[in-house]
Amino acid sequence: MAKASVFMAKAIDLALENVELGKGGPFGALIVQNGEILASGANLVTSLNDPTAHAEVVAIRAACAFKSEFQLTDCDLYTTCEPCPMCLGAIYWARLRHVYFACTAADAADAGFDDRYIYEQIARAPADRAIPFDSLMRDEALACFAAWSAKTNRVNY
Amino acid sequence: MAKASVFMAKAIDLALENVELGKGGPFGALIVQNGEILASGANLVTSLNDPTAHAEVVAIRAACAFKSEFQLTDCDLYTTCEPCPMCLGAIYWARLRHVYFACTAADAADAGFDDRYIYEQIARAPADRAIPFDSLMRDEALACFAAWSAKTNRVNY
Repeated sequence: MAKASVFMAKAIDLALENVELGKGGPFGALIVQNGEILASGANLVTSLNDPTAHAEVVAIRAACAFKSEFQLTDCDLYTTCEPCPMCLGAIYWARLRHVYFACTAADAADAGFDDRYIYEQIARAPADRAIPFDSLMRDEALACFAAWSAKTNRVNY
Repeated sequence: MAKASVFMAKAIDLALENVELGKGGPFGALIVQNGEILASGANLVTSLNDPTAHAEVVAIRAACAFKSEFQLTDCDLYTTCEPCPMCLGAIYWARLRHVYFACTAADAADAGFDDRYIYEQIARAPADRAIPFDSLMRDEALACFAAWSAKTNRVNY
């Protein structure tokens, strides 16, 4: 079995174990660097009361904590399902190198998860979304970016 | 000043303070329930080495921890900037009621943040993204959803 398949099989095991233990949804993920597993994660939303604790986010946070870095530029992600928009965003912010996924967003939707719905919502303008988005005080808030730009010792990310 | 403006002014203060303290990017957020602040957050990406620690995610996680719930259905979010795709996903998973934002994603891009780029990437098919996405072992991974569907005492989210 090719190495990629070994990692994905491990992610699937994590997902199955997670369902068995009742810790959260049927999702598992691994972060791999130089052919070695750096961190793993399973969906812990309901057990941790954390809606952001998807397998990919859990694995990314664990890998960053392990490396004491906020980017994972030379790392790959293995996940049992195509990432939802939240996780896709996290993958880009972490600047992962490559993503391997097994099930699709459509499979997740068929199993009752909101991934596809959220993808549809993201594509809309703020005013057309199911959750109302209203803008206020933009002029005042631009001071935050001005302060950031003026800060000489800022840490960009 | 209307109450919404009071909350947004507080979020702006959090963002400015965050830049001053050097804890992360120029972003602040509040979760409000029944007209009271339930939790707050600032961007802690670089100080926590956590690429998911955007102000909105930090505030959502704090509010959920406070309520011991994984959804915030009767809560509103105030954020100094239009949420990035990761945070937008988190907002939908948390099922927030209303979002108020100040600066736009374009303002964030002008200040050097990747929000708009990630929105563009999300709209693409997996094969067309800057980070390569490859599918493997879908058939094997469908067992995760089958196990989930067969679990009688599962906690849906």
